[in-house]
Amino acid sequence: MNILSERMSNLKPSVIREIFKHMADPEVISFAAGSPSSDAFPSEKIADITAEILRNESNVALQYSVSEGYPPLREWLKLRLTEKGIFTARKDAPDDVLITSGAQQAIEIITKLICNEGETVVCENPSFIGSLNSFRSYNANLVGVEMDDEGINLEKLESAFKSNPRTAFLYLIPNFQNPTGKTMSLKRRKDVLALCDKYKILIVEDDPYGELRFLGADIPSIKQLDVESDLGRVVYVGSFSKTLAPGLRVGFMCGVAPLLQKATVCIQASTVHTSILPQMVVHRFVTQNNFNQHIKKLQLLYKSKAKLMLDTLQFNMPLSIDFIEPEGGLFIWGTLPGSWDGLDAAMMMMFCRKALDNKVAIVPGNAFSPDERVPNLSFRLNFSYPSDDEIQKGVEILSKVAKTMFK
Amino acid sequence: MNILSERMSNLKPSVIREIFKHMADPEVISFAAGSPSSDAFPSEKIADITAEILRNESNVALQYSVSEGYPPLREWLKLRLTEKGIFTARKDAPDDVLITSGAQQAIEIITKLICNEGETVVCENPSFIGSLNSFRSYNANLVGVEMDDEGINLEKLESAFKSNPRTAFLYLIPNFQNPTGKTMSLKRRKDVLALCDKYKILIVEDDPYGELRFLGADIPSIKQLDVESDLGRVVYVGSFSKTLAPGLRVGFMCGVAPLLQKATVCIQASTVHTSILPQMVVHRFVTQNNFNQHIKKLQLLYKSKAKLMLDTLQFNMPLSIDFIEPEGGLFIWGTLPGSWDGLDAAMMMMFCRKALDNKVAIVPGNAFSPDERVPNLSFRLNFSYPSDDEIQKGVEILSKVAKTMFK
Repeated sequence: MNILSERMSNLKPSVIREIFKHMADPEVISFAAGSPSSDAFPSEKIADITAEILRNESNVALQYSVSEGYPPLREWLKLRLTEKGIFTARKDAPDDVLITSGAQQAIEIITKLICNEGETVVCENPSFIGSLNSFRSYNANLVGVEMDDEGINLEKLESAFKSNPRTAFLYLIPNFQNPTGKTMSLKRRKDVLALCDKYKILIVEDDPYGELRFLGADIPSIKQLDVESDLGRVVYVGSFSKTLAPGLRVGFMCGVAPLLQKATVCIQASTVHTSILPQMVVHRFVTQNNFNQHIKKLQLLYKSKAKLMLDTLQFNMPLSIDFIEPEGGLFIWGTLPGSWDGLDAAMMMMFCRKALDNKVAIVPGNAFSPDERVPNLSFRLNFSYPSDDEIQKGVEILSKVAKTMFK
Repeated sequence: MNILSERMSNLKPSVIREIFKHMADPEVISFAAGSPSSDAFPSEKIADITAEILRNESNVALQYSVSEGYPPLREWLKLRLTEKGIFTARKDAPDDVLITSGAQQAIEIITKLICNEGETVVCENPSFIGSLNSFRSYNANLVGVEMDDEGINLEKLESAFKSNPRTAFLYLIPNFQNPTGKTMSLKRRKDVLALCDKYKILIVEDDPYGELRFLGADIPSIKQLDVESDLGRVVYVGSFSKTLAPGLRVGFMCGVAPLLQKATVCIQASTVHTSILPQMVVHRFVTQNNFNQHIKKLQLLYKSKAKLMLDTLQFNMPLSIDFIEPEGGLFIWGTLPGSWDGLDAAMMMMFCRKALDNKVAIVPGNAFSPDERVPNLSFRLNFSYPSDDEIQKGVEILSKVAKTMFK
């Protein structure tokens, strides 16, 4: 269709959403999605809260609202993010908070706001496919930078900034990164921030999993470390999708007020505002319940699921396949032994295909690559959505497939 | 802030949303918004439906869903739009339906999908400010075409197409247009479609008020008339904001499947999907209740409110001020006598300002102008949101203000 805009030329359906179609088959065990556990939804409380809202405040819940988001939820978020050191009442550039229809809308709106067509977005390689597609949908030039054990590689990041003077922003997922599960060290966060200060590059810090740490100690967010720059170098993006329920589509962004005023105009011109009933449900849940206790329960649930998956992988999988142990989040990243020069991509796709033929869905690593043509030896496993039985059974099937292919 | 993208340069906050801020004053009578009557919300039924959904299907309502929209709601829409002749199972280019977060998101996504930066969007002058801002947010060149009593002027439309060869699409609101309340005649719809066929221009037909006809007979939509073109020249956009509740943010678009597949990818990269609980609420409401009867009630309510406002205007306002009697929708368009060459814009703004000083909010006509700098002698009044008492009192105040300024 030649009527399409140029920016659409780079945009293809997400591989994950395509794999979703196979998952209509109830026999398929899915390690492919990024969905939280349905067991973790506080369904009864949400039902009670919703009934109360529609009994007492139906006109608020059903009528048009403001584009910035439901005011009491924004106020609660400001308090919570202040406690965490993320929301800053900087004198010259105080922060603000906006509610979005999921963190994904926040990412899309920031891209629309800041990135001209053809400008560069630098990100970790691999990175979250949904965000990559947001960047692609504005015809951004995607530049992925390799990661090491501490996060995005600093030298390669600097050379990416040097070779891409028209860089709109740096996109990072410092906690339990999607897809690798890696967490950026404190030192690396500081170094990355200093580098961005030097090159005057805005950082978009995506933190959907930050609350879901089940091992180790919390590390300050980059936004929190950004106390010296007057500008406010970091826009912090969060979500209730993993901590409460993704179907509600309630996320948020926190950054300097003038930028967020412009973002509000973008929201007006897109969804007008996030559906108000879900925003009220989130607000009532976080204020009427012990939200920290709820988070704690999620952490324990995911800790046990991650451990089960890792233990089962280590017991069954060929030793040549490497897995990264995450300290939180939803994902385990596996890497096949790479010894078939040129055949790597084909082997990876064959592994995923054979797994799906045996009713286990996983996502091949190149789906997360800023340049999808680059072959990739890794794959992503999700442990939050499948049941414990499915984790065991699915990993056993996957291991059998792997053993037919790798030592 | 110099970090902003070029496309943001043309985008300012909607005048209406700015007027909203004054409306925090409970003494202000608002004729400014485009909100439906809160009395019209079937709140109790929505409360019952929602409780049932969260009791029986909370995992569906709270988990991630597909970007195309809640499948049962899409199926219902296909049936309803088939009955109306809008959904077409054309052999070569069958239609599809997508759910969006309000009609506004549909407009924004179509713009993203089709309009390159700098390309032209042709529309009625005046037109809906929210859509104009969507177009501006992609740096579109807005070309407004004057309307006469039958709708957009055909000769001027053709000359707009001729002088703007890089036209991405024509945007129209044929029924009870926002802001003028005008309805495009059947002949004009046919002629506009033929003209667009000749110039190979896509039509985006926005029909948020189509169900709210309270006078005269229904006129086929342009989408419905588009039976001959193989391509499918029209994308039809609708909403449940006026027929059920705007806070839910559930709208839809109907057009040829290949185009809507691309739109689905845009939704993936933006909101992922429309909040699922509101989609399920809409689906249960339209299938478990007599939706047509509900619509009939709304039509009677708005007929009586429109009549009350028009009668009160005609009784109190200076005779020199013209009002257009709408056959449906939410708005009455007034025009001041134009006899102060060069002072028109100043007089209009003074009239709106004096009205607001006297606690009545109205929207000046130039807010709806594709070129906001052009002075405009008109203003928009909304009759759906204020109570009957407010309509009477507000019009009386407005009339006093008018009498101090005009004969």
